Amino acid sequence: MATPHEPKQDRSRATRQRLLEATIDCLAETGWAAATVAVVAERAGVSRGAAQHHFPTREDLITAALEYMFETRMAQSKSEALALGEVAEGAGRTQAVVASLVESYTTPLFKAALQVWTHAAADPALRERIVPMEARFGRISHRMAVEALGVDDTDPVTHHLVQATLDLARGLGLADVLTDDSLRRKEIVQQWANTLHSALHAPR
Amino acid sequence: MATPHEPKQDRSRATRQRLLEATIDCLAETGWAAATVAVVAERAGVSRGAAQHHFPTREDLITAALEYMFETRMAQSKSEALALGEVAEGAGRTQAVVASLVESYTTPLFKAALQVWTHAAADPALRERIVPMEARFGRISHRMAVEALGVDDTDPVTHHLVQATLDLARGLGLADVLTDDSLRRKEIVQQWANTLHSALHAPR
Repeated sequence: MATPHEPKQDRSRATRQRLLEATIDCLAETGWAAATVAVVAERAGVSRGAAQHHFPTREDLITAALEYMFETRMAQSKSEALALGEVAEGAGRTQAVVASLVESYTTPLFKAALQVWTHAAADPALRERIVPMEARFGRISHRMAVEALGVDDTDPVTHHLVQATLDLARGLGLADVLTDDSLRRKEIVQQWANTLHSALHAPR
Repeated sequence: MATPHEPKQDRSRATRQRLLEATIDCLAETGWAAATVAVVAERAGVSRGAAQHHFPTREDLITAALEYMFETRMAQSKSEALALGEVAEGAGRTQAVVASLVESYTTPLFKAALQVWTHAAADPALRERIVPMEARFGRISHRMAVEALGVDDTDPVTHHLVQATLDLARGLGLADVLTDDSLRRKEIVQQWANTLHSALHAPR
């Protein structure tokens, strides 16, 4: 939160971040169409004038929110991978990695991203902006998963099983959008982690 | 196509179906907001008056399209399961089942459904209508997959692995929305089917 003693530049940066976080919450909860500068400003507790100073148009806001979303997802992915490094190696580590990966696809951040992807499916200009970011995010997620699992990604079986785990996580994220799918998801995660662990460590 | 000799009722039914199919194409290609009665009528080659006779409001059109989508998805799922029954049992059958399941999540029907789900995430009334249909579709897809794989679903490992395969398919479907993901997908499907086949048939 901004305080009266905070330098002006820091206050401005804090306001900008509040607006971007409010954009994510709006997208996740009220959907693409409702995430306008006016609605986001109100949610962030920022005056409309101040919001428009940061983001003159809705497109400016959405573009900045997209970058913020990708940076946040990458930072979270890296910090989760780091935390997983402290779990003892073995089947327990694999369980923790799969669970952590899957949970990252059930957050408001994923739900906001889903709104953007779905809108971008019918908006070529938006799609052009998102595709390189998604490709970069995909590569980083994959690398983080490989490191956390402690496996050799040059092995094609390993490479494809890690990819499949990310695809499964995306599918489980989508299954959680309309209803709370957490109970079913927990069982799927447990089973897949067991199967994945055996497959990754099978002799070949 | 309607012909001059077709009874009036059949022509009316054909028009209705053309409008519903055009709705799916519109949703898949131009997104939720653009799928209006006027746009759909034009795409279907039906006069606006005739379209409004069938569907007085956009809500009527979307509701009917939803039911049509679910019926079509279920009919396709059943006919695919039937076709898979002709593939010789064994690893080849498992490959064919996984490939067929995953491909069903890359169709315009899936892309149209994604538009509806994403919109429903922020629209409680629409969500209430969709959730029971999705639950029913999920149960039928699961049963079809179990039958096609020729496995015993009372075994919890089997049950969860079949569920995971449906979740993977959904995730791969979502990955195909912004770019053509078919090359990568083919490798994932192949690896998943191998791993699934071993895990389903491992002694326990």
